[in-house]
Amino acid sequence: VRSLGRPPAWVRVGPGDDAAVLAVADRSLLVTTDALVDGVHFRRGWLSPRALGERAYRVNASDVAAMGGWPRAAVMALEVPRGTPTAILDGIVAGFVRAARAHGAVLVGGNLARGPRLAITVTLLGRPGRRIVTRGGARPGDVVFVTGALGAGAAAVRARRGGRTAAFPAVPDRVAVGAALAGIASAMIDVSDGLLQDLGHVARASGVAIRVAADRIPLAAACRRLPRREGLTLAVAGGEDYELAGTVPRGRRAALQRIARRLGCPCTEIGEVVAGRPAVRLLDASGRALHVARAGFDHLRR
Amino acid sequence: VRSLGRPPAWVRVGPGDDAAVLAVADRSLLVTTDALVDGVHFRRGWLSPRALGERAYRVNASDVAAMGGWPRAAVMALEVPRGTPTAILDGIVAGFVRAARAHGAVLVGGNLARGPRLAITVTLLGRPGRRIVTRGGARPGDVVFVTGALGAGAAAVRARRGGRTAAFPAVPDRVAVGAALAGIASAMIDVSDGLLQDLGHVARASGVAIRVAADRIPLAAACRRLPRREGLTLAVAGGEDYELAGTVPRGRRAALQRIARRLGCPCTEIGEVVAGRPAVRLLDASGRALHVARAGFDHLRR
Repeated sequence: VRSLGRPPAWVRVGPGDDAAVLAVADRSLLVTTDALVDGVHFRRGWLSPRALGERAYRVNASDVAAMGGWPRAAVMALEVPRGTPTAILDGIVAGFVRAARAHGAVLVGGNLARGPRLAITVTLLGRPGRRIVTRGGARPGDVVFVTGALGAGAAAVRARRGGRTAAFPAVPDRVAVGAALAGIASAMIDVSDGLLQDLGHVARASGVAIRVAADRIPLAAACRRLPRREGLTLAVAGGEDYELAGTVPRGRRAALQRIARRLGCPCTEIGEVVAGRPAVRLLDASGRALHVARAGFDHLRR
Repeated sequence: VRSLGRPPAWVRVGPGDDAAVLAVADRSLLVTTDALVDGVHFRRGWLSPRALGERAYRVNASDVAAMGGWPRAAVMALEVPRGTPTAILDGIVAGFVRAARAHGAVLVGGNLARGPRLAITVTLLGRPGRRIVTRGGARPGDVVFVTGALGAGAAAVRARRGGRTAAFPAVPDRVAVGAALAGIASAMIDVSDGLLQDLGHVARASGVAIRVAADRIPLAAACRRLPRREGLTLAVAGGEDYELAGTVPRGRRAALQRIARRLGCPCTEIGEVVAGRPAVRLLDASGRALHVARAGFDHLRR
């Protein structure tokens, strides 16, 4: 594909041989894989091929960002229904390559297979940032944060299901923010399944309980326009936000806000880590637990 | 999944976080990706879940072997139709992990998505062997070789299409052979699309012509039982053999046969590299060109 361009020198063997060969300068390597399947993670009509390629890159970059790392090289396996125009595949690759280039990451290989529906499976390799941040380091007393705003994707899915037009939001690029947060975060995760569910992974991996204040959740504009409870549900349980959520020691709160200002990305304090059985509780202003059903993208999936 | 077992120390963060973290001891890294899609690359009834998992590993290991490398770590993305029993997924993972363990390779991550049909996309990372062998090093005067025997898979597909039962052959494990051949081969590829087509990739990458002697092709037993021309066609154009084909300088022919004996894997000389426009010609005993149609697995694909 022409849009691949000329690979940098550290790609010793690029696409077109049995395997790519990469020079490795670091002592460790991040590896993640994520797939987009037509009708499950997206609908063809909702995204242009380029936007789809960008999304396929960014959902993987989000996982590398959540470890505090930098994307480096990717392989892309496409499943393509018979009769798919080449222009669609070229558009997907072009969108992917363009999004990857923003981080100096390179598409080094791929695979093309027939399949019943369009599916894009990406494996992304990354290099660690200043520190590798897992889900397992949250400690009682830490502050819980989330980047950006939540619920835009889930609100768009809901609007389109209701027959209304709604721009389908792009996956935000949080790689630089994740790398900066790696200097202070005790635990981090990307919000792909919904904030509460993903913070649940942090709680379990860290062996702590997490309390989230409902009125602190940064709602996407589309959620703020909905009835309060509905907007909140989409924001905390909708999924596919690809923002970063995590924890920082209480003494690093000022540093958290400095990073937010420096990189122009809101980092909102939304709760706290406490000792206790691993669980996440969403609390209203008076401290009562709120219960929300799963929402948003989940409907596409089941 | 229980069958993952305890990862070795060089897997710093294993499955269950946003990305796996691997310690890297070598200065370069091999990366390859390959997918198996139900109805395209296999049929559910033809393979047990464990055999399918083994196959998903071995088709990727074959690409690493063709570079002369050793598999090291893998991620597996599964697309799974609604209602698929968990036992099938466990079987696939168990078969994969067992086959990987034979090389000390480890499954370090994965992704599970709903999809219309079962599909297994694997990305395999490998470490280079003594030399990295690409497709581009064949030189006029070199001898062309192929490991094992060809056509078993294509013959089984053909038999089953004709309503006969036929054992579906496992993908051979050629990793140790590939690593040994890396010491002497000028070019190497794995035979996935059919011998002639794959040697065509070598011819183009190397800028040479390749002549293959039809009566030297090592036919799988199932092909020897067929009418001569039919068996030959399946062997040279059937695909999915996952044997290694390549070229060695003429002075390394004895070394080629020493490797074959030492590792108990036939390495048959089947032709020669000559100067000329990149192309592969299949010649009969009297030197006339034979033309064969594509065969075997290709029917599943289009």
